[in-house]
Amino acid sequence: MKMFKFKKVEGGVCASQGFEANGLNCGLNPVKEKNDLGIIFSKEECQTAAVYTQNKVKGAPIIVTKENLKKSNNISQAVIVNSKNANTCNADGKEKAEAMCKLIADELQIPRERVIVASTGVIGQVLPIEPIKSHVSDLVKGLSKNGNIEAAHAIMTTDTIKKEYAIQFELDGKVCTIGGMAKGSGMIHPNMATTLNFVTTDIAIDESLLQEALNKIVKITYNCLTVDGDTSTNDMLCVMANGLAQNNKITSKGEEFDIFCEALYDVLMNLTKMLAKDGEGASKMIECTCKGASSLDIAIKVAKSVVGSSLFKCAIFGEDANWGRILCAIGYTDAEFEINKVDVTLASKAGEIVVCQNGSGVEFSEEKAKIILEEDEIYVNVDLKQGHEEAKAWGCDLTYEYVKINGDYRS
Amino acid sequence: MKMFKFKKVEGGVCASQGFEANGLNCGLNPVKEKNDLGIIFSKEECQTAAVYTQNKVKGAPIIVTKENLKKSNNISQAVIVNSKNANTCNADGKEKAEAMCKLIADELQIPRERVIVASTGVIGQVLPIEPIKSHVSDLVKGLSKNGNIEAAHAIMTTDTIKKEYAIQFELDGKVCTIGGMAKGSGMIHPNMATTLNFVTTDIAIDESLLQEALNKIVKITYNCLTVDGDTSTNDMLCVMANGLAQNNKITSKGEEFDIFCEALYDVLMNLTKMLAKDGEGASKMIECTCKGASSLDIAIKVAKSVVGSSLFKCAIFGEDANWGRILCAIGYTDAEFEINKVDVTLASKAGEIVVCQNGSGVEFSEEKAKIILEEDEIYVNVDLKQGHEEAKAWGCDLTYEYVKINGDYRS
Repeated sequence: MKMFKFKKVEGGVCASQGFEANGLNCGLNPVKEKNDLGIIFSKEECQTAAVYTQNKVKGAPIIVTKENLKKSNNISQAVIVNSKNANTCNADGKEKAEAMCKLIADELQIPRERVIVASTGVIGQVLPIEPIKSHVSDLVKGLSKNGNIEAAHAIMTTDTIKKEYAIQFELDGKVCTIGGMAKGSGMIHPNMATTLNFVTTDIAIDESLLQEALNKIVKITYNCLTVDGDTSTNDMLCVMANGLAQNNKITSKGEEFDIFCEALYDVLMNLTKMLAKDGEGASKMIECTCKGASSLDIAIKVAKSVVGSSLFKCAIFGEDANWGRILCAIGYTDAEFEINKVDVTLASKAGEIVVCQNGSGVEFSEEKAKIILEEDEIYVNVDLKQGHEEAKAWGCDLTYEYVKINGDYRS
Repeated sequence: MKMFKFKKVEGGVCASQGFEANGLNCGLNPVKEKNDLGIIFSKEECQTAAVYTQNKVKGAPIIVTKENLKKSNNISQAVIVNSKNANTCNADGKEKAEAMCKLIADELQIPRERVIVASTGVIGQVLPIEPIKSHVSDLVKGLSKNGNIEAAHAIMTTDTIKKEYAIQFELDGKVCTIGGMAKGSGMIHPNMATTLNFVTTDIAIDESLLQEALNKIVKITYNCLTVDGDTSTNDMLCVMANGLAQNNKITSKGEEFDIFCEALYDVLMNLTKMLAKDGEGASKMIECTCKGASSLDIAIKVAKSVVGSSLFKCAIFGEDANWGRILCAIGYTDAEFEINKVDVTLASKAGEIVVCQNGSGVEFSEEKAKIILEEDEIYVNVDLKQGHEEAKAWGCDLTYEYVKINGDYRS
């Protein structure tokens, strides 16, 4: 990644030309102020790329979305998504997910197979279709260029803030936009996919290159995020590209494809960080950078192992520079490297300290460590000194609040 | 496993003939009432089998013990073990671990390579050798047949109770004994090893068969235990067999070897359950049985995936029958099987309920579920209905207390 600078803009999924969105409370969530049904719509056809959870238990919406995109040759125009109920492990799950597609397709007057359907919430409770049916008309009527905020609220579950990110950049002198929204905030340990994430872009790009870019960038963003080690049954990330920016369509690899990948990285990486920061019960975001690895996969594995350690997560919550737990987590990474070369530093905007050199502890000021760990974004830098590859992973601390939220999630 | 009945006896590691033990506070732990130095001793030579952590970061005592047993052809006579300091990630770690062996060997007048050395506690703090040096004489003088209790206390860290288990059974009309002690209670996710565990037996058995039995039984006991997913740097399980029971030495596989394996399973399984029950901060023990698997490895993986899920652990803490999280954890198991055949029940001594059949939820009484989950030992029964293999895994709930303990462990 060359790290271009992109212009951050407002508007989330509606930032891209030709996309509208909306969200409302249809009654799945008894709290009337909380949106539970969302929509994204493009009048133009969109080339669509997607990745899905690798969990063997797949939510019915995942199965239906896959079928739809297969039928439509990866052309989509709308996303319908509900929260509060995952529509997973239900005997009638597929029927209900298909009904959601039909309802929205009929209202929008588009083919049913151009609908992406997603659900998030409690697993194993029958999804009531009536509340959705009775609100589809209002949902579509309310579509607007400002609807991104309502839509972003509609996919929130235990999230404390909505998550949107959008950027603009130029290709062929044309302004191109990528915008996304995402939900957290528990059961987060993406595996070739993510939580629910919807990304729109007005760029013109070949379908297979769009999927290739998505696969490449997901690997180093969402798949490097862990909140609690639990891979969700309903993970999905899709990118819809409607071509309205009128750039010369990207049909081969080269500079323009690279810029698009960079831009997609910027959006997905920033959404990933938001998800980490708002992980269930989290008080601190943890970013681990592993450099000096002999391969990208080793760098990813080491960085993920550190941010995934329950013990280290608790230490960060306690603002305790217990670096032995970092070494321990590096040590049980399932990858080949020499541990006795490893250097580790702890950092935040308050400073940086070396805690370990060549696999052994070094003396450091506990006072300075405490000041560094009081910040709410903590950086762990691991240098394996065995190569030139680098990767980052993101997570959060493990807190009383996480246990509280998840001790009584269903009620 | 045929599940013989064995006679449970008192005495822990001293239950086996010819073994004495002791423990005391040498000053590593400032709390004078808490033992921090322990010893086990057999005047007779012991055939010794051991398994160690697979973490790349290995405590210096692990490295020294391996070297000693190699030099001595797996003959040992003594264990020296300290708590409060793991002697890991220290530049002088090996030197200190060797010094511990020399001190105890000189005092016992045995060869240095017959000493097993182990440490547990904080990683990356220099181990002061003086407190140990000045207490070796008292430690050895105090060796007795009742010393198992002091020794079991000496290896405790965040454990709330000492963990000992011993049984007797007959071979060739001779009474044979196996006794063990273990420590918990965090950084527990054994990988081809365990936490610190010392097992004694007076049985006569060939060295290679002893190691074979240990490998076989560890796989289905300690390696099926998880408290927090963190594999320790200092894991070690050793079995010392001094032959004093005078049974005909077991030199080949057959009925006697099978009985020994059963007996070893009984001891290690019961210690495993104690470790799960006393997991850091735990209020409930969780045992998951996976049957109907097409291979033992799949059964083990599924059972471990369930007891390792942070979300399910929180649900059990909250006494919430959120079975969707069980399905989710079964689903992300890295093994091949069909999810749509799976049945799940939740049980405790208060009863049992079916929560899922053929991969989909079934209606059940939330009231009955609540009563079942109020108990302190919870059983999850998973039937894959795809074969005849079965395995169990053990864990515990995730609680406020776990976070509290680990937010400030070093101080």
